[in-house]
Amino acid sequence: MTVGGLSPQGYAERLLSGDRLALARVISKFENRDAESAEILRSIFQHTGKAKVWGITGAPGAGKSTLVDQLVRVLRAQGLKVAVVAIDPSSPFTGGAILGDRVRMQDHANDPGVFIRSLGTRGKLGGLSHATLESVLALDAASFDVILVETAGVGQTELEILSLAQLVVVVLVPESGDSVQMMKAGLLEIADLFVVNKSDRPDSDRLVHHLQGVLDLSPEEKRRPEILKTQANAGKGVEAVADQLSVLSSLNGEENRRRGMEFLKREVLHILTERLSLSVQQAFETSSGQELLAQLVARKIDPISAANILSGG
Amino acid sequence: MTVGGLSPQGYAERLLSGDRLALARVISKFENRDAESAEILRSIFQHTGKAKVWGITGAPGAGKSTLVDQLVRVLRAQGLKVAVVAIDPSSPFTGGAILGDRVRMQDHANDPGVFIRSLGTRGKLGGLSHATLESVLALDAASFDVILVETAGVGQTELEILSLAQLVVVVLVPESGDSVQMMKAGLLEIADLFVVNKSDRPDSDRLVHHLQGVLDLSPEEKRRPEILKTQANAGKGVEAVADQLSVLSSLNGEENRRRGMEFLKREVLHILTERLSLSVQQAFETSSGQELLAQLVARKIDPISAANILSGG
Repeated sequence: MTVGGLSPQGYAERLLSGDRLALARVISKFENRDAESAEILRSIFQHTGKAKVWGITGAPGAGKSTLVDQLVRVLRAQGLKVAVVAIDPSSPFTGGAILGDRVRMQDHANDPGVFIRSLGTRGKLGGLSHATLESVLALDAASFDVILVETAGVGQTELEILSLAQLVVVVLVPESGDSVQMMKAGLLEIADLFVVNKSDRPDSDRLVHHLQGVLDLSPEEKRRPEILKTQANAGKGVEAVADQLSVLSSLNGEENRRRGMEFLKREVLHILTERLSLSVQQAFETSSGQELLAQLVARKIDPISAANILSGG
Repeated sequence: MTVGGLSPQGYAERLLSGDRLALARVISKFENRDAESAEILRSIFQHTGKAKVWGITGAPGAGKSTLVDQLVRVLRAQGLKVAVVAIDPSSPFTGGAILGDRVRMQDHANDPGVFIRSLGTRGKLGGLSHATLESVLALDAASFDVILVETAGVGQTELEILSLAQLVVVVLVPESGDSVQMMKAGLLEIADLFVVNKSDRPDSDRLVHHLQGVLDLSPEEKRRPEILKTQANAGKGVEAVADQLSVLSSLNGEENRRRGMEFLKREVLHILTERLSLSVQQAFETSSGQELLAQLVARKIDPISAANILSGG
């Protein structure tokens, strides 16, 4: 079966009918900011808004991927269709790929109710966040019930993406001792659930107590996050995590609606920002743009004034 | 001495006269995207364009900060004024602060020819990149001869910032074995100089040979990066690094000009993007914006059409 050479509407129809290859191609188009993205998004958008979008973050080595795989297993057993979007920071130094798609796909390769995809950070600033939002919309339109967005939470982009998820799980391990850094990075504010993984290890209770102490000091602006213990590699405690997420999801109606609105506002802003970026690039290539640039380089005009000229102000 | 309550022009004048407190305040205003930023930038911009801007990246633990401190020492001995801007990813998991400003300042605390500052990732997407560009302009206007921009190179933002530096140094250690990840992340393309630090350790020659092999395979689009060995904590090899950077800097006139132009284009784009973001946010708060948002949430309109309406299209 091939999906090459389809029109944007063709891709959209195939995606809506459950064609995985079309779904994969559409996500690639979103990731590459392909010119057809807008038309495809338009065609699928009215079929979105049903999926649960949950963010999962944690340190490399915290067993985040294992937890995600086990969550997929539990949610599948409940009859739910589950997608995983792994945000891959492509770090040159911290190990890069959160997942080898191919490796992780193997467990679920023959299951049409599971779709796993990683998205990389290459390309323009803001591009990863934009691609992630639109990929979530594609998976939502393709009738996945739960979309797990997995990040290592290392940068601005990842934290922004997490803030748009309906629920956020932060995975910790006893030896991590990262609570101060965690608070500093704002994860404490966005966490809806803490999972202490590898809880058979020493100090796991100490981490739980420590976290409780930190939460005691937090302002009571939102529901206090639960702390659950798991041993994801043995499958222990994972059902409790899935259950807690389902319960929170049903309790969280107003907050889900608010985050869904923020998600859409962000998507609109991404579309406008992308257009602006393109038009500024084009403007700098015209002869008057080149002249403006020469004046900037010569410090005869400042960037604010140049911006005013470009925006016709 | 106080600089509180100054007008934007007052801040600019003090900064240009060498007042470190005014410089620090201006950078904070840029970092916080303070409303006065634009006016200050306008007043200092004509005094920019003289500094050398060099990026330094490397894995946590590669001795990057030690190398930077030693470079500062060497450049100071040459009579140059040196500033360090450390991009702090505020990662919840990878240790956060690249530097404790206070700790690192101690060596140079009484030296008016050295200025060290870290910039964090909190805040809006694109905000860190914008703040870094403007901070570099502030330091340039304040007559620093060399501005070292230090990053852990973990995200899109950091790589984008590095790509705007006139020269980029990538610091590696023998045990890192990160060359594949490095290539994947695009560091190979932007590196102008490799430094193998902690070169007294085993496998340091092996890393050098390996890097040479990788460079042999690279397309010859740009000058082949040198590979230098250092033991930064003992000060060994650091002068050779400084000398090589100075030589490259003088050879690189055309490329410096190109990156300087890209830097200014990016700054103009940041200014316009920030305005767009503000105006979209405001538009969504009006009654017609609220109506538009309600239609989006109800899937009666798609994000592309909403973007068209907001942009008056």
